[in-house]
Amino acid sequence: MTLTFTQKLENAWNRTNSQLMVGLDPDPARFPPDIQWRADAVYAFCRAIVDATAEYVCGFKPQIAYFAAHRAEDQLEALCRYIRQTYPHLVLVLDAKRGDIGATAQQYAREAFERYQADAVTVNPYMGFDSIQPYLEFPEKGTIILCRTSNPGGSDLQFLKTADGIPLYLHVAQMVANKWNTGGQCGLVVGATYPDEIAQVRARVGEMPLLIPGIGAQGGDIDATVRAGRNHRGQGMMINSSRAILYASTGEDWREAAAQAARATRDAINAVLPA
Amino acid sequence: MTLTFTQKLENAWNRTNSQLMVGLDPDPARFPPDIQWRADAVYAFCRAIVDATAEYVCGFKPQIAYFAAHRAEDQLEALCRYIRQTYPHLVLVLDAKRGDIGATAQQYAREAFERYQADAVTVNPYMGFDSIQPYLEFPEKGTIILCRTSNPGGSDLQFLKTADGIPLYLHVAQMVANKWNTGGQCGLVVGATYPDEIAQVRARVGEMPLLIPGIGAQGGDIDATVRAGRNHRGQGMMINSSRAILYASTGEDWREAAAQAARATRDAINAVLPA
Repeated sequence: MTLTFTQKLENAWNRTNSQLMVGLDPDPARFPPDIQWRADAVYAFCRAIVDATAEYVCGFKPQIAYFAAHRAEDQLEALCRYIRQTYPHLVLVLDAKRGDIGATAQQYAREAFERYQADAVTVNPYMGFDSIQPYLEFPEKGTIILCRTSNPGGSDLQFLKTADGIPLYLHVAQMVANKWNTGGQCGLVVGATYPDEIAQVRARVGEMPLLIPGIGAQGGDIDATVRAGRNHRGQGMMINSSRAILYASTGEDWREAAAQAARATRDAINAVLPA
Repeated sequence: MTLTFTQKLENAWNRTNSQLMVGLDPDPARFPPDIQWRADAVYAFCRAIVDATAEYVCGFKPQIAYFAAHRAEDQLEALCRYIRQTYPHLVLVLDAKRGDIGATAQQYAREAFERYQADAVTVNPYMGFDSIQPYLEFPEKGTIILCRTSNPGGSDLQFLKTADGIPLYLHVAQMVANKWNTGGQCGLVVGATYPDEIAQVRARVGEMPLLIPGIGAQGGDIDATVRAGRNHRGQGMMINSSRAILYASTGEDWREAAAQAARATRDAINAVLPA
């Protein structure tokens, strides 16, 4: 029997004792010297990071933009295949943030779930329910919807007060929890830079998984993030770190530095949780 | 001297006397029999549509999802190159609807403007200004922001009343016109299914170009759309039709049927405008 995304994620949390997710944002300008000469440098770098950090994470999140900008879709396919085959107990989230009308969303769902065979994909809610539905038609896959993002401009729209007196991002959280999540397949993206807002979202969405970017290079506070984001069982989070782990060292020790950064981040998350 | 996107678009309107844009959404399941056996069927089909309709349009809009789902990025590159070289006076809009934090948006901007060398790209406003800025750093390129979309779920968020009493999509229109468009590089996506709302947007954005999908297969009314969307000079629109032109006939006459559908749509648009 195939596990659903939520079941697979819960298994990963239990088995790895980690709610850390490593984001794979490969930037060739920052690759270490012993990798950057390779024709498949993007794949080789990411695979090395995956192997160095797999012990400390509940999953990986490749950011497709970094592959697309470098004409490296074939390397992303190979990387996803490698993660699935080598670490089948970890979740694979494709960070794509797609959003388009139904017929086009069907194509993007095929891209994420058939071509790259991700367990879940990130999507944008601006175009409404029928732009999300084609992803939900894959019953064993997860659909993680942007709610409150960790970047400075995130407030431009997301913090606008709607007529019912709550900001747009909480309206999105409620809409997803109450209307879109009928199959239990949804998650939400909520940035770590605003722990109070993570708590507001958690209060409205029950046990729903939250993908929380913004710790590490983006400056989010781990302690406050975990207190705000955990569910009743002390789980419910994919706390993402990308650059702080990928580029922890520019020296020859980059693999070990990535492993250490991942372990330290996992431990900092777990230190806030009940043993 | 390189023309800006807006200048190139105005030249295209003047030279072609057309505000029709043909959307390239290649669906292999709907390809005609004389094309579908080819290894490069996606490219061959789109190129034939481009050649059949180029006389009647101001530009082309490939939808990247259809290429990505079929592992056909190389064919999209070849198609963009063919359009640029063969019809350099027409505009090339990459329909990607990307939206992500600044560092990632830089990668998506490179994808659109360096890899595919599009004249403009569609983007999603949900993540705010710093998710748009990396596109604006290409001064000769256009950035076309989702405002009001033509799909049924478009109302889920876009029609929410904000605290200042106007719906979210008008807030986006005002924000783009008053704050984001300082370099004159922005356009807006406004669906043809709601002509009254196109008029509301036009009233707030001056001469800004509007990309208007939703006529043809999606049912928008051409007459009402043109009356609502035209600017003071009777221009200002890229009225997009995709499926109604691409799949106008499933018989051997598919090229001629596409050409006829494009000509008829252009003529229907022009019939509403002053001669």
